[in-house]
This record gives sequence, structure tokens and C-alpha cells, in this order.
Amino acid sequence: MLNIKRYTSTQPDFQDCLQQLLAFEGAQDESIDQVVAGILHDVKTRGDAAVLEYTGRFDKLQAASMAELEMSAARLKQAFDDLPAEQREALQQAAERVRVYHEKQLMHSWNYTEPDGTMLGQQVTALDRVGLYVPGGKAAYPSSVLMNAIPAKVAGVKELIMVVPTPGGVVNELVLAAAHVCGVDRVFTIGGAQAVGALAYGTATIPQVDKVVGPGNAYVAAAKRRVFGVVGIDMVAGPSEILIICDGKTNPDWIAMDLFSQAEHDELAQSILLSPDAAFIDAVQASIAKLLPEMPRQEIIRTALENRGALIAVKDLDEAAAIANYISPEHLELSVEDPVALTARIKHAGAIFMGRQTCESLGDYCAGPNHVLPTSRTARFSSPLGVYDFQKRSSLIMVSPTGAQTMGKIASTLAYGEGLQAHARSAEYRMKGS
Amino acid sequence: MLNIKRYTSTQPDFQDCLQQLLAFEGAQDESIDQVVAGILHDVKTRGDAAVLEYTGRFDKLQAASMAELEMSAARLKQAFDDLPAEQREALQQAAERVRVYHEKQLMHSWNYTEPDGTMLGQQVTALDRVGLYVPGGKAAYPSSVLMNAIPAKVAGVKELIMVVPTPGGVVNELVLAAAHVCGVDRVFTIGGAQAVGALAYGTATIPQVDKVVGPGNAYVAAAKRRVFGVVGIDMVAGPSEILIICDGKTNPDWIAMDLFSQAEHDELAQSILLSPDAAFIDAVQASIAKLLPEMPRQEIIRTALENRGALIAVKDLDEAAAIANYISPEHLELSVEDPVALTARIKHAGAIFMGRQTCESLGDYCAGPNHVLPTSRTARFSSPLGVYDFQKRSSLIMVSPTGAQTMGKIASTLAYGEGLQAHARSAEYRMKGS
Repeated sequence: MLNIKRYTSTQPDFQDCLQQLLAFEGAQDESIDQVVAGILHDVKTRGDAAVLEYTGRFDKLQAASMAELEMSAARLKQAFDDLPAEQREALQQAAERVRVYHEKQLMHSWNYTEPDGTMLGQQVTALDRVGLYVPGGKAAYPSSVLMNAIPAKVAGVKELIMVVPTPGGVVNELVLAAAHVCGVDRVFTIGGAQAVGALAYGTATIPQVDKVVGPGNAYVAAAKRRVFGVVGIDMVAGPSEILIICDGKTNPDWIAMDLFSQAEHDELAQSILLSPDAAFIDAVQASIAKLLPEMPRQEIIRTALENRGALIAVKDLDEAAAIANYISPEHLELSVEDPVALTARIKHAGAIFMGRQTCESLGDYCAGPNHVLPTSRTARFSSPLGVYDFQKRSSLIMVSPTGAQTMGKIASTLAYGEGLQAHARSAEYRMKGS
Repeated sequence: MLNIKRYTSTQPDFQDCLQQLLAFEGAQDESIDQVVAGILHDVKTRGDAAVLEYTGRFDKLQAASMAELEMSAARLKQAFDDLPAEQREALQQAAERVRVYHEKQLMHSWNYTEPDGTMLGQQVTALDRVGLYVPGGKAAYPSSVLMNAIPAKVAGVKELIMVVPTPGGVVNELVLAAAHVCGVDRVFTIGGAQAVGALAYGTATIPQVDKVVGPGNAYVAAAKRRVFGVVGIDMVAGPSEILIICDGKTNPDWIAMDLFSQAEHDELAQSILLSPDAAFIDAVQASIAKLLPEMPRQEIIRTALENRGALIAVKDLDEAAAIANYISPEHLELSVEDPVALTARIKHAGAIFMGRQTCESLGDYCAGPNHVLPTSRTARFSSPLGVYDFQKRSSLIMVSPTGAQTMGKIASTLAYGEGLQAHARSAEYRMKGS
């Protein structure tokens, strides 16, 4: 029998229970951080030579030069061509749907001219060059390649450089095929902190990028934190989470499987159900017990559900929405009769899966929106990965001669108030006319 | 005589000189970081009591309760009412211009429906509560209050909580007046790492915020880095910079004063001029020598220009644009005949000041765009502070019964490919219909 926590929102210590349930300290390991600092310093100073050494040491992959660690476009295409037709088509269809959705996110430049002729605006440009980290081993997901590469390409990033470790030379053909489908420009079979360092600082072979994105292990996460500022980074994600609100009228097997689909990611993943229907919660618990033995990854699912899962009885859907806003989940599934009305009450969530048909896994792969989402309550202040993460804005200010008179007065008054005389005089020069 | 560096883009070691000029390691002081870690832990566990103690110790401000450290709305209004009329008007006019510009940045929700009835979209919401750090002492700029508070309010942030240290009880009336003008909701006279901790974790008196923005000293910066993840933060800014491209036809006194206006901020500020006209560069250098003695902050300006400034002769404006893109400056002034054409060649800059009339200080105070801008070459991948920093997006996915069939096929194929069976089965359930 699986031992998942059950709460009711009316129990006196509910808020404490909820806080405990959500508590997750992404403890940064000091020793990992020190190792990473050393690797980064080494890559920064010795470049390719250091990257080759670490790749030999950590990935058991010996190479005489970085050129040997680059994969050709032909090799990527071959990986794609060699896939079963069904997988090829699924990859292409998913990529197309993701591309179409992300094109709606493109930001465009704008400007406006004031009556006195002053022009103000915002010029939007793409990042020049982006590095995409793809993990090797068990967490190597081709869908992650799609979700990171496509927004960058839609944004107009000219050069997208993927790094993926291939420990012992073992490659993941689906990942290479996904890189081909997305039009990744260059691929190096390196990984770890050394790959992040190579992208952030550049080496003789690997050009310096402007941003590093993509998931990775604790070493990769530590390296990304350390190079932040030299380059941009995406978020450093915590364990994955799903919160399901169900009115009790969905097939309980479906809800159980949706909870599993989050829990199977890893032992730290979090699956929570909120429902006003206590009998339905019992039914879901029965479905969990029934279906768990059928799952190949049942040990991971069991650990995740027992340690971090919960089934919570709530008063009504209004209260469920309020709790969801507090939790600010990465994935929020609204398995209810009127998901549009409920969505309007949701303020904080990474992605909202609306209606009984919309299971989270459709969004993970192919619905269109990104599956890189804010975790650990950070949806209170952050957003899914998107095209906007690969574009940036420059403010535009072109002051007319008339504008220079009126604004000069305001600016010089405030500048003198702040004790910044050069600011004031710089504005005053323009007031006198040239 | 002021000793500012002179380079020409044709000298063989130019690229090395440029790199050296730009090199700035925002060395994170390990001892500061340890002190900050202790303060944050203390504030997290002891709340108000810890904040009161640190405020007494560091700011020499004794208070029996946090309530004593809160400033009333009436007090803010009084600060505003007591200002000279000219300053009152300047503050209000600046605020109004900043508000109008930022309203253009508002992101809106969108969605679209596919032929099979599947709806996809993005729901945009504001952050609930934001903390605004305002430094006490010499770097206390009312214009910073405007530039941080107005975008938050335009975004729809319901509660904006300002903290500002008042060492020894000394308050900056202009800062309080600016808070009044912007509609800041609550003000506490606390500062340092303890204020950042109070905002990030919440105390009995100070509610937890979702994001902390605003400039501060090394302790504040270290505290912001440490609470990042619990709350959002804005960028941790480096020293301020200006790059001026001038065709040689602007009054050299203007350009000299524009270089000063950056240099007067602090000794680490960076002012660089690029011009294809060597005689003009001589003239600017002469203007610098002539005008410097007139400046109240001449010692700061001299140190900044001598240590980090440069006057650089370039071949032409095309080369100047290429160098500007490499530098990716915080402020870029295009003091040229056709600034529109040159702007089109600029890919990386925080803000672009176009034309001879548009000195940077107009943008600092009142043109409209934000003066919180990416420094230290981070304009390659980041943007000015804006309304978008106080909004976030939730992806919307509502799959139709037909969509569940087609997408279910794609998702299950890819999920099996990744070894995630629960993902696949969750999608398959929807394919069979309910």
C-alpha cells in the first residue's frame, strides 16, 4: 500500500502542513561549488586544453583536439534519418507546434513621437549567440532540445551551440535528431562545468556565447550560477511539480496517472491533488494503488508520492484556487467542468492545463507552450522560458530642440537636487541651443 | 592636467587595450558574504526583533517596535508639500513622463484557437507585492524611486513596500516626496541586508514580497544574490558607463560635460568617446581640462576619467558602431548628424541617446525610459528595468477532444522514446475518450 499524505483544508494546522509540504531547500553543496570554481578558472585560463582534459577525466572520452569533439551537421541528420518513421514524424510535428506557438511571443520594436518632435521607443534585438546545455544519461530528453532551441531560433539567435556529454562515447540518437530538427548550428560532445565554462568564456574552438540555457546536474547548476553576469542564464530549476484541481467528475484513473506522470521524473518531484469531493479523493487513492504496479518506474513514483505528494480535501473550487495561488505551481491542471472560469481566478502558475482532456504530458511534448517552467513557488515572479528570453530591449530617446528646453529644465532641477552638477549642466547646454 | 587614455582603433594592440579598459571584476567579497548570510539567517528566524537590533546597531536608530520605523502616508505627503515649488513640479512632470512611456510596455494576455478547437495562450498577471530598496546617504536619488516604483505600479503591483535606511534618523526629504508622487504603499526606515531579509522572508510586521528591486551597497547586493530564488530580484548592477559616438560636429564642451555626467557618479564609472575626427578628440580633451576645475565633484570625475575613461579615434562611424556593439554599453550617446541610421546598426546597448540634443541626463531623469540599465556588457543579453519585470506569464493550454487524439499520438510516441510511461499513458487515456 502506498502511503500518501491526506489533508483537509479545515484541519487547524493546515497552513503549517502546506508549508512543510512545499518546503524545499535547494541546498547548494559547498564542496560542489568549490570544485566547479576550480574547473571554471581552469577553462577560463587554459581554454581548449582544460576542456579536453576534463572531458577525458569525467566522461572517459579521450580526444586529441576539440575538433574531434564536434559533431557535424551530417551526423545530426543521420541520427534523424535513422529514426523509426513514427518518431521522426512525432518530433517534426511537435517542433512545428512549438514553433507556431512561440512565434506569437516575438517582441517587436516600437516608438512614438510627441507633439514637440521628441521620439521615444524601444528597439528589440536578438541575442547573438546562445549555448544550450543538454544532459547526457538518464535525463537526456529530446523534448528539452526542442523547448530550448526553438524559442532561441524564433527570436532570431544567429548561432546556437549545443553541448551534450557523451560519457564513454555513448550518444543519444533522439537528442541528436532533435538538434537536427531545430536547426542547432554546432554541437560539441562535452558536458559538466567545463562545458558551461567553455560557453561562458569562449575557447580557441568554442566561441563565447551571450547566454547559457538548459537543464543539468548540480555541477552544471553551480557553474551556471557562477558564470551569471558574464553571460545570461535561464532559471536554475528545482524539482518538477504538478498541482491538480479536480471537481471529482474526472475518471480517477486519469488523475492518478497524471499524478504519476510528474512523480516519475524523479524522487523529489511533487504531485498534489486538491478536490472538494472526499469520495473522489478515495477513488484516486484506489486508482493509485491499482495502477502503480503497472508502472515501469514505480519505485521512483512511490518515493516521490510518499515523500512529497499529497491529496487534499478542500471546501470548494474557490478555496482550491486560493491554495493554488499560494502554491504557485509549475504545472496546474484544472480538471473541472468550467476551466475557463477557474483560470480567471489563477494568478500564479507556470502553465495551466485546462479541462479534463488536457493532461500535462501533452504540454510537455507538443501542445506548443514551453515545458521549461518556474518551479518552487517562483511562478509568483517568473515566467515560462520563451522567445522573450532570447531577445532584449534598448531604450530609444531622441529629443527635439523644443523637448530639450522643457526636459532640460526638469532634469537640471532634479540633478541639482541630487547634487549632480555635471548632469545639470549637460542638460543646460542643450537649453541654450547649439 | 588630466591624464585620460587615448587610443586609435588602428593600433596593433587595440583589441587588447579595449578588453583591458572594459575589464571589471565585481569581486564578491567573501567576508561581506559571510556577514550577510548571518544577518539573513537571523532575520529569517527572529523576524522583527532581529531587524530592530541590526537597525539599532548599524544605523544608530533605536526603536522599541517596527511600528516606530514605519513612515505614514501623511509624512510622505508632507515631505512633498514642503519642497520648493520648482522641485515639486519637476518631480511630478518627470513622474508623468516616465509613467506614459512605461504604459507602452504593458504586456497583455492573448490566446488563439486552432481549427480543431484547441485553445492556446498566455495569461499575463502582475506580481502581488514588491519591495523597493532605496539607499540612504550619498547615493539616495529620488529619481531612482521614480524609475523603480512607476513600472511596478503601471504593471499593477498591488502593494509596493519601500525600505530606506535613515542612519541616525536623518531622512532625505526628496526621496520621501518621490515615494509620495509614485504612490508607494508603505515605507520602513530600515536598510542593509536586514531590510532585504525582512522583505524576502517576511516578518510579523513586514509582509513577504515576491521581488526585491533597487540599488544598494555591497551588503545589499550580496543579500539580494542570496535571497534570489525565494524572491525575484532585479539585476545586480556594476559601475555606470557611457559610450559616446560623435562625428566631430558637436560642441566639444557638450561632449566633455556628457563624459563628466557619467564620471561624477563614482570613481569606478566609465566614460568613453569614439570619434573618427582626431582633431575633435583633441578639442574634447581641451574642454575637459578647461571645464573640470568648475565641477564640484571634480575629484571623483578626475579619478574615474583617469582610471577608466578613454578617448578613441576610429576609422569611421561604421567601425564605431561595431566597437559599440562589442562594448554593449549601458548608455550610448549618438552625437551625430543622422542618429536614426546609426541606431539601426546598434545591436547591444541599454539605452540609446540619439542626436546632439539628447544628452544622457535627460534620460536619467525625465525623458520617459528607465534609467535602471544593464551594465558591464550585460546589454548583450539583458534589458532596461521595465513594466515587464513586474508582470509574469502563465501558459494556457485547453485541448479539444479532437486535439487530444492527434496530440496524444505525438506525445505518447515521444514519451515512450524518453522512457516516461506514465506520460504516455496519461495522454493515451484521453485518446480513448472518456
